[in-house]
Amino acid sequence: MSNEIPEPAPVGLNLGNGTFSPARLVLRRVLIDTYHENVAYMHRDCEVYRAEGFKALSKVEIRTNGRSIPATLNVVDDAVIVAPGELGLSKAAFEQMGVEDGHTVTVAQAEPPESMGALHRKLGGERLHLDDFRAIVHDIAEHHYSKIELTAFVVATNRDELDREEVYFLTEAMVDVGRRLDWHEHMVVDKHCIGGIPGNRTSMLIVPIVAAHGMLCPKTSSRAITSPAGTADTMEVLANVELPIEQLEEIVRKHRGCLAWGGTANLSPADDVLISVERPLALDSPGQMVASILSKKIAAGSSHLVLDIPIGPTAKVRSMPDAQRLRRLFEYVARRIKLSLDVVITDGRQPIGFGIGPVLEARDVMRVLENDPRAPMDLRQKALRLAGRLIESDPDVRGGDGFAIARDILDSGRALAKMNDIIQAQGSKSFDHNQPELGALTFEVHAPVAGVVTGIDNLQLARIAGLAGAPKVKCAGVDLLRKLGDEVQANTVLYRVHGSFPADLEFARQAVRRSSGYTIGAASEVPHVFVEF
Amino acid sequence: MSNEIPEPAPVGLNLGNGTFSPARLVLRRVLIDTYHENVAYMHRDCEVYRAEGFKALSKVEIRTNGRSIPATLNVVDDAVIVAPGELGLSKAAFEQMGVEDGHTVTVAQAEPPESMGALHRKLGGERLHLDDFRAIVHDIAEHHYSKIELTAFVVATNRDELDREEVYFLTEAMVDVGRRLDWHEHMVVDKHCIGGIPGNRTSMLIVPIVAAHGMLCPKTSSRAITSPAGTADTMEVLANVELPIEQLEEIVRKHRGCLAWGGTANLSPADDVLISVERPLALDSPGQMVASILSKKIAAGSSHLVLDIPIGPTAKVRSMPDAQRLRRLFEYVARRIKLSLDVVITDGRQPIGFGIGPVLEARDVMRVLENDPRAPMDLRQKALRLAGRLIESDPDVRGGDGFAIARDILDSGRALAKMNDIIQAQGSKSFDHNQPELGALTFEVHAPVAGVVTGIDNLQLARIAGLAGAPKVKCAGVDLLRKLGDEVQANTVLYRVHGSFPADLEFARQAVRRSSGYTIGAASEVPHVFVEF
Repeated sequence: MSNEIPEPAPVGLNLGNGTFSPARLVLRRVLIDTYHENVAYMHRDCEVYRAEGFKALSKVEIRTNGRSIPATLNVVDDAVIVAPGELGLSKAAFEQMGVEDGHTVTVAQAEPPESMGALHRKLGGERLHLDDFRAIVHDIAEHHYSKIELTAFVVATNRDELDREEVYFLTEAMVDVGRRLDWHEHMVVDKHCIGGIPGNRTSMLIVPIVAAHGMLCPKTSSRAITSPAGTADTMEVLANVELPIEQLEEIVRKHRGCLAWGGTANLSPADDVLISVERPLALDSPGQMVASILSKKIAAGSSHLVLDIPIGPTAKVRSMPDAQRLRRLFEYVARRIKLSLDVVITDGRQPIGFGIGPVLEARDVMRVLENDPRAPMDLRQKALRLAGRLIESDPDVRGGDGFAIARDILDSGRALAKMNDIIQAQGSKSFDHNQPELGALTFEVHAPVAGVVTGIDNLQLARIAGLAGAPKVKCAGVDLLRKLGDEVQANTVLYRVHGSFPADLEFARQAVRRSSGYTIGAASEVPHVFVEF
Repeated sequence: MSNEIPEPAPVGLNLGNGTFSPARLVLRRVLIDTYHENVAYMHRDCEVYRAEGFKALSKVEIRTNGRSIPATLNVVDDAVIVAPGELGLSKAAFEQMGVEDGHTVTVAQAEPPESMGALHRKLGGERLHLDDFRAIVHDIAEHHYSKIELTAFVVATNRDELDREEVYFLTEAMVDVGRRLDWHEHMVVDKHCIGGIPGNRTSMLIVPIVAAHGMLCPKTSSRAITSPAGTADTMEVLANVELPIEQLEEIVRKHRGCLAWGGTANLSPADDVLISVERPLALDSPGQMVASILSKKIAAGSSHLVLDIPIGPTAKVRSMPDAQRLRRLFEYVARRIKLSLDVVITDGRQPIGFGIGPVLEARDVMRVLENDPRAPMDLRQKALRLAGRLIESDPDVRGGDGFAIARDILDSGRALAKMNDIIQAQGSKSFDHNQPELGALTFEVHAPVAGVVTGIDNLQLARIAGLAGAPKVKCAGVDLLRKLGDEVQANTVLYRVHGSFPADLEFARQAVRRSSGYTIGAASEVPHVFVEF
């Protein structure tokens, strides 16, 4: 079976002597927000449109001052929006051009991206080489792929479609296309979790602990994509997280650590584009996960990484064989890109800590740092163990001593002091962690019968917190009052939902009516997982 | 590995008593042509927008008078385009609503399509059942899938991702979702080619031959998608092809055949949507091809089908094992949907006939019908053999007699008379087939050396004809003067390119410079294919 790849047509106006001059139009900003998609508007009676034979929804390339952006063409029949002789651009596209209204631009039918051949080979089931992945990732990062082409790449590299060598190629290509930080130190440590567990804010404890130990830990995190809070969203409750890269470097040099949003550093431009199609499809395949995570770590300049793979009935990874397969893939690629990796498979049967949502999670973190008796012990224990593993990558620390060193740093208040230094350096926000301002509107969810909590559905609790407003409404979310194995009476409060807007609370309440996310049963029914911690 | 599927949020304005009323806006037509994609425009300061927390590019559902359409939301900051309190709709979307400017509509966040669960299971590598395919195909036909979701479905069912049972399910689902014609006859014959061979206009000969034999052959064809001419484009040179279904039925009843465009009959609404993503990706997988072709035949009311699978170095199918695999898949599904199928594997080493492009191909067809000595013999022979196979499905015809019967109908002029009847019935266009008006601008392509024509690249010749303007410019295309095995001298004219516009000719010339599509070598190098004809 073979596929005909349409030939790109050269474009421009024929000057009659066999040469072509590109068509010129006057740029106009159209105040339509098309989000990440560049849209160009051209009047149907525009001479350029008629001469070029553009079709609506065809891809065009707009150029001026040596800059060029791709856009989708919409044809307009209303001169109020855009007149003949003008080229309208949607808001984000206009900003990318970096010129003013009235500037002259040229427009031409976009050539298909150079990597289309490689994409077609992947769609045909072939293995790709490093150069193929480089070409594809380059085109993706430069926004040369349409949504259709992006989706085709993501689906064609889904599941087991990439072998481990190809996952390495993809990782390498994703590193190459972005910026790469250099901290000028031999050892730069980092910690990452593959996600899926609400409340799992260990980074905000591990960074101050290992930085207090003297290790360099320049942590950049993402915001929540589908979850009710990312580390960046939660840290933002306490401090600024959107820092220029120069300020970030200064903070890290001075305090050995930071907790910032990674978006400003432009570390993985291709990843940001791929997420725009992975998210609506809820795709999160092993190969793409490994390439996305490890390429970002290399780009951030990390040399040592501890990776948290939670396992549980409603976690991303649900069986030990799956976890081991994923671990081996991470380890293979890490070795190829020369990243020292320590994979830890952890208990993902339920949310970590009590709070789900930025303010609630920040409260839990600060309570652990302050050795508050109300601090969630599971969050404290997990953070100490992961921090201990990172500390053991220090050549001066004996294997097995890491946990005790981490505990000592936390119990002595040095971790709290370090966290406060980082907060001050990034720009503190007024937040009283003893009396955090939670969403004023609440409702409680009660146990329907007496028994033992035998299940807490990570996905359903995340969904409820999200409907209540998290992470957009920082003080919204879910506060868990009972965890796995806890005994409850009929009507015991299982959790409390917080929010700021009545409509949000109503959506959350409807979701709770469909499923509370809790199952109550006998003590013997609590699921076990056989992991280190 | 599990994926979190975001929960659909219920929407509407909270009336404070726990009930929600849908948001009402005044409809406004926005004169932007977004092609097949419905776009809704809402002002950022619109109360509904603020209350609902819609995001730009989120999918919304717009309802009025019991009608409902999905659309992508664009947020506008210019009240000239759309004011707060108004809902703008792009042109095609506006028409679908079937109401006037100023009508009141409600708008709500669109629920994810019901079949998303099935799509996610396919993305996860599972087999789907008939009900899953029914749900998916229904959502596709109703335009409930985004481009991302459509692409995900097409790529996840690409190549060998569907087993033959699933291909049958997909076919059945595609039949169910469209209109189905009933000709009230026991035997309704049809002929189809899987495509890829320029000039291969056998349908325009087979229909008059078998109709003259008395068989019912209501042929509906497609326009060219990526090729330089489809049967509908070519027939349109001679007659109207866009006929209301009632007129089509009348013509078929009277003349036993027709050659019309299938688009007006709404026979395969899902297929039309799928093509919008298959085309830019140049995807044409066996499963999708079988489901698309056979579902259309069942919808068109056919009982007997002759299917042409050309094989050759630049055909869609390039090896006999591939052809046999495809044949078996067609036969399996045809049996399940109770369609009598006769697969014929044919010679696809080069274009059929001389002309490539609507007028040139119409000329070849008419020359065959008129027994003109300039008629291309390969087109004549192939059409006679395929028509013979169809005629043999007549229970009164002995096996092996079909070819002779077809030849007699053609040689006697009865096929030409039937064709003229059909042309008159559909509405004749003035076309002098002896002196067809070919594109006045031409250039010739010459043999670089003496030798024998050992290869003609179907893809490159189609590309050149397309750049010259075909099928949009009906009189544009390529006229082949030499075919496989022909001896040439250095400078012998191999083919002539026709067009109407200098720019088109220049694009074609540039393509010829990259590759003429012809290879000249020794007589022994002409590739052989071992097919019946």
